[in-house]
Amino acid sequence: MQLSDLTQRDEQDPLASKRMQFELPQDTIYLDGNSLGALPKASAKRVQEVVSQQWGNDLISSWNKHQWIELPLETAEKIAPLIGAAKDQVIVCDSISVNLFKLLTAALAMQTGRNIVVSEQGNFPTDLYMVQGIEALLGEQRCTLNSVATADIESALTEEVAVLMLTHVNFKTGRIHDMQRLTRLAQDKGILVLWDLAHSAGALPVELDKCNADFAVGCGYKYLNGGPGAPAFLYAASRHHDAIRQPLSGWMGHTSPFAFDEAYQPAPGIKQFLTGTPSVIAMAVLDAALEVFTDIDMYQLREKSVALTDSFLTLKEQQAALDELQLISPVDTSVRGSQLSFTHQNAYAICQALIDHGVVPDFRAPDIIRFGFTPLYLRYQDMHTAIEILVKVMSEKLYLQQQYQVKAAVT
Amino acid sequence: MQLSDLTQRDEQDPLASKRMQFELPQDTIYLDGNSLGALPKASAKRVQEVVSQQWGNDLISSWNKHQWIELPLETAEKIAPLIGAAKDQVIVCDSISVNLFKLLTAALAMQTGRNIVVSEQGNFPTDLYMVQGIEALLGEQRCTLNSVATADIESALTEEVAVLMLTHVNFKTGRIHDMQRLTRLAQDKGILVLWDLAHSAGALPVELDKCNADFAVGCGYKYLNGGPGAPAFLYAASRHHDAIRQPLSGWMGHTSPFAFDEAYQPAPGIKQFLTGTPSVIAMAVLDAALEVFTDIDMYQLREKSVALTDSFLTLKEQQAALDELQLISPVDTSVRGSQLSFTHQNAYAICQALIDHGVVPDFRAPDIIRFGFTPLYLRYQDMHTAIEILVKVMSEKLYLQQQYQVKAAVT
Repeated sequence: MQLSDLTQRDEQDPLASKRMQFELPQDTIYLDGNSLGALPKASAKRVQEVVSQQWGNDLISSWNKHQWIELPLETAEKIAPLIGAAKDQVIVCDSISVNLFKLLTAALAMQTGRNIVVSEQGNFPTDLYMVQGIEALLGEQRCTLNSVATADIESALTEEVAVLMLTHVNFKTGRIHDMQRLTRLAQDKGILVLWDLAHSAGALPVELDKCNADFAVGCGYKYLNGGPGAPAFLYAASRHHDAIRQPLSGWMGHTSPFAFDEAYQPAPGIKQFLTGTPSVIAMAVLDAALEVFTDIDMYQLREKSVALTDSFLTLKEQQAALDELQLISPVDTSVRGSQLSFTHQNAYAICQALIDHGVVPDFRAPDIIRFGFTPLYLRYQDMHTAIEILVKVMSEKLYLQQQYQVKAAVT
Repeated sequence: MQLSDLTQRDEQDPLASKRMQFELPQDTIYLDGNSLGALPKASAKRVQEVVSQQWGNDLISSWNKHQWIELPLETAEKIAPLIGAAKDQVIVCDSISVNLFKLLTAALAMQTGRNIVVSEQGNFPTDLYMVQGIEALLGEQRCTLNSVATADIESALTEEVAVLMLTHVNFKTGRIHDMQRLTRLAQDKGILVLWDLAHSAGALPVELDKCNADFAVGCGYKYLNGGPGAPAFLYAASRHHDAIRQPLSGWMGHTSPFAFDEAYQPAPGIKQFLTGTPSVIAMAVLDAALEVFTDIDMYQLREKSVALTDSFLTLKEQQAALDELQLISPVDTSVRGSQLSFTHQNAYAICQALIDHGVVPDFRAPDIIRFGFTPLYLRYQDMHTAIEILVKVMSEKLYLQQQYQVKAAVT
C-alpha cells in the first residue's frame, strides 16, 4: 500500500468534505476522537450564540424563547437515528455513570426475585463501579455484580440474572459484541439488557430497536463530538415507560415541574429520566455538534471506518520496526470498532513521543496504545503520515528520551 | 424616598463598579438573578478560550495542559470562602438533585436505626422529590420523609430522625432559616444536617463551618452567575470524609481513575463525591464567573442586598396603586434573603406585562411574583425605575391585556 493509493481514496471519499465542518489543529493527526471528539465549527458558533445572545441578552426568557427547556429531547432526537431508536425513547442528561444508576436501579426493581447484574471483566470501570455502588446501597440480596470473562458471558445468563449490562465496543480492545444475539439470549431467560454505547454511538451503526434492547446509555463527547464532558444520553424502550420508576426523581423529570407540587409524579415517557437542571451551554454545544450527522449514512461511515483501520494495519504490518507493537484489537473487521489497540511495555512513553511528533493516540494502563479513527475528519493519507511518524518513534527509540517518561495526571 | 436619594446611594456604593463586570441587556432591570444570574464578561471570554483554544486546538491534551481534571476542585475553592467552608470540603459536580441523592443516601447509611428525613413543606420541590425517590428505592424502613410546617420543624427533631434537610433561604418567600440554631438543635438529637444553599450562596454570608453543618448543596446558576444549568456544588464537613460512602460511585470519584481498576475505591476526601466526567465547558464558565467574587466582602454585599430590598419595599409602600400586591416575604430584614415576593391573583400576567415593559421578575405558581435583587449588578436607582413601571402596569391594569395571559412552558 502506497501513499498514492491513499490520496486516491481521499479523492473518491464521499465523506471527505465532512472534515471541513471541524476545527482541527495544524500539523496534527488526531487519533483520539474516541476519547474526545474534535470541535465542530457549528459548536463553536452555537456556544457564542447561547452565551452572548441567549444568556447574556435574553436571560431567563430564553428557557421559553430559545426553547432551552426542550433541549434534552431535541438533542436526543438527533442521536436517536444514529443508534436505531424510534422517536421518544432517548433523552440527553447527566453523565453515563448517573444514567447507569437510574437504569440499573429501575431495572432491578422490575425484576422481582432476581438480583444479579452480569457484566464483563474489562468493561469500562465506571460501569462496574456503579453496580458496586448499588450493591453497597441496596445490599447483596437486591444487587450482586457478576463480572465474568468474555467467554463466560453466555453461560452466565441464568434465570437468577436481573440485568445484563455490557459495553457494545470495548474501550481497550475495540471488540464489538453481537448485540442482537446477546440481547436475545438474555431475554430468553427473562433478563433485561442494558447496552453502553460509549464507543459505538457515532462510530458505527447501532440498531437498538431492531435488537430489541431494553436500555442503553452513551457518551456525548467521543464520536458525537459534543465537547469535553458533554452530557450523556439514555435510551429506554417505550414498552418499559409505564412500568419503570427511576430513583433520581428530580424536578426536571416531574410531569409538571413548574407547578411546584410537593409530591413527585414522573413525567410520562422518556422525560421521567431527567433529574436536575441540565447545563444548557453544554447541551447546546452537543446539539450543534450533531448537525454534522444530519446527512450521514451510518453504514457509509462504518465503511470508511473499517477502511481506515484496515489501511493503518496494513501499513503497520509492512514495517518491521513496528513488530514490537502487539495488536490486541480483533483482526476480523466485523467485530472491530473504530479503533486499533496495541500493547508495548513502553506504551506510555511511546504515546508521549507520538504526541510530541504530531500524532495523537492515547494510553490506557498498563500497557496499551489506543488509536481511534474518526471517519468524519480523518483522511486516508493521514494513515500514511501517522505510520511514518510511528516508525520514526519506534526505530529511533525516541520514546526512551527522559521527557516522555514523566506521567501526567490524566493518562 | 426620592430618585435623588437613590442616585446618591449609587454614587457612594462601594460595589458600584462590579456592574461593569457583567454583560447586561439595554433598557432592562433584571430582577431575576435568583433564577438565572447575568453573564459575567469573564465567562464570555473564558468560554471562547475553552472551546476554541483548549478543545479546538489542544484537544485531549487539555485535561493535563489546561488542568481540566482539577476544575471540580479549583472551582470549588472559589466557592468555599463564600459559604464559610475551610479548604477541601467543597466540590463542584452534577446538579443539586443528584448531589442531594449522594448526601442523603450516604447520611442515612451513617445513621443506623434511624430512617426519618425531616424537611419543610414549601421547600423547593426537587429536595422533597429526591427524598421520595430514595424512599421508593430503599423502602420506608430505611427512609421516610417527614415534611412539616415551618413552625413544627423544631418539635419534629426527635431521636428517630436521621437527617434534617432544609433550604437556607426559601425559594418562594425568601425567608432565612437560623442555620446555627437549627443545626445545633438537630445535632443535639444526633441528627445530621444538610443545607440547600440554592438561594444563599453568593447572595448573603453563609457560615457552614461556624454553624458546624454536616452537609450542604448549592446552585451555580443563581447568585453565582455560572450560566444556565451550571454545575452545582456539594459540601461535606471533613470530619465525615472517612466514614462516608456515597452510592453514585463513578470513575471520577475513584482514588485512581486512570488505573482502570475494576473494584471501586473511593478517592480520599471530598473527591469521592465526583461521579461521571463533568462538563468542562459548563464548569469553566462557572469558574470564570466566580472571579467576580474574588475581592467581595460578603457582609458588604449583604448590606447592599438589604438596602436594595428595603428601598424597593419603601417605594412600593408609597404607592397606593401597589396595595393589591401582598408581601409574603418577611418584613424583618434579618430573616429575609435577597428577594421580595408578593401575591396577586393575576401574578402570572403581571409578570409578563412587567417583562414586556423592561422589568424582569419571575412567577412562581400559583400566585407569586418574585423579585430577586443581585447587589453585584443592580443599582439603587433601578429600584425607582422598577417601581415606576410596576405602578404603570398595576394602575393601568396592563396585565389584563390578552397577550399577557398566555402561559409559556417555563413560568
